[in-house]
Amino acid sequence: MRVILVDDEPERAKLVKEALEAGGFEVVAAFGTGAGVSRRVRDLAPDVIIVDIDSPDRDTLEDMRRVTFEQRRPVVMFAQDGGADIIRAAVAAGVSAYVVDGLKPERVKPVVDVAIARFAQFQEMRVELDKAKTTLAERKLVEKAKGILMKRRNCGEDEAYRSMRRMAMDQKLRLVDIANKVIEAAELLG
Amino acid sequence: MRVILVDDEPERAKLVKEALEAGGFEVVAAFGTGAGVSRRVRDLAPDVIIVDIDSPDRDTLEDMRRVTFEQRRPVVMFAQDGGADIIRAAVAAGVSAYVVDGLKPERVKPVVDVAIARFAQFQEMRVELDKAKTTLAERKLVEKAKGILMKRRNCGEDEAYRSMRRMAMDQKLRLVDIANKVIEAAELLG
Repeated sequence: MRVILVDDEPERAKLVKEALEAGGFEVVAAFGTGAGVSRRVRDLAPDVIIVDIDSPDRDTLEDMRRVTFEQRRPVVMFAQDGGADIIRAAVAAGVSAYVVDGLKPERVKPVVDVAIARFAQFQEMRVELDKAKTTLAERKLVEKAKGILMKRRNCGEDEAYRSMRRMAMDQKLRLVDIANKVIEAAELLG
Repeated sequence: MRVILVDDEPERAKLVKEALEAGGFEVVAAFGTGAGVSRRVRDLAPDVIIVDIDSPDRDTLEDMRRVTFEQRRPVVMFAQDGGADIIRAAVAAGVSAYVVDGLKPERVKPVVDVAIARFAQFQEMRVELDKAKTTLAERKLVEKAKGILMKRRNCGEDEAYRSMRRMAMDQKLRLVDIANKVIEAAELLG
């Protein structure tokens, strides 16, 4: 398991790194907050990001949001701050585990395992949601384009649909791309 | 915060109950696994279900799945078993927190807070997903019914759609209900 460790206190980071390595993790990088975690996640592609922190500030949460939602990696946060607002903010930022009372080396492994399982579940749901939204949006576009063709060509639904399918095949495009072209053309011609 | 505590060991349950109450939780019921947790969650409507267990068996996970997905309540599980398979099974069953190394009274409150925040996020996403799926399914039905009317009445898309809208208003039904009636009628008449 390849890990990036984010910790602002070099002394503590050193101890945590040793403990993680003793627990079978490979720490591929360790640095403080504000050191461009997003870029380094992209470059190093770790399995998980472990953040050891007193209380995450707004910038750190924004970094974690980017890591979770854009780079799709699980974040495990060990913090001292157990305030309900901070917890809500961390969860909203996509943090897969937020553990209060600091990082105990012997507890890291199961926490990371839970976080990875939860992140996989979360990703699955997001993919499903994205797919449903995309399908719906594409369907609306195809319907709209079909309506435009029916009106312009004074033809039936089937004919308009078949015509778009044919264009899609001929141009090696998806049906929704043809629909977009039809809508654009109609807007252009008025 | 109203809590149901599930714990198979009466002695341990008593200590945990006292600790929870000292921490400001109201324990509305405490019982073992297999004691009909699903029914009692329905009757008592607790804010959270706390499970203290060595390792959840298949029946317990199925109970938790029901509590999470059907009764939509967060489950926090404190367990001894940190095995990766058990963790994955618990997360798949919808458990909002799975904490390995047993329940420590002083750690319960933040864990429950994180679990509740995470559950709310999960619910929000599920509602959004359900909505997207329903909209898509309804749209397909309306399109299908429209096609049937266009063919049977030899009319255009607009007319078929307006006709369904009118039926929906007259019968005080939703458009999708009219679509279903049209589809059923067409199947009946062949």
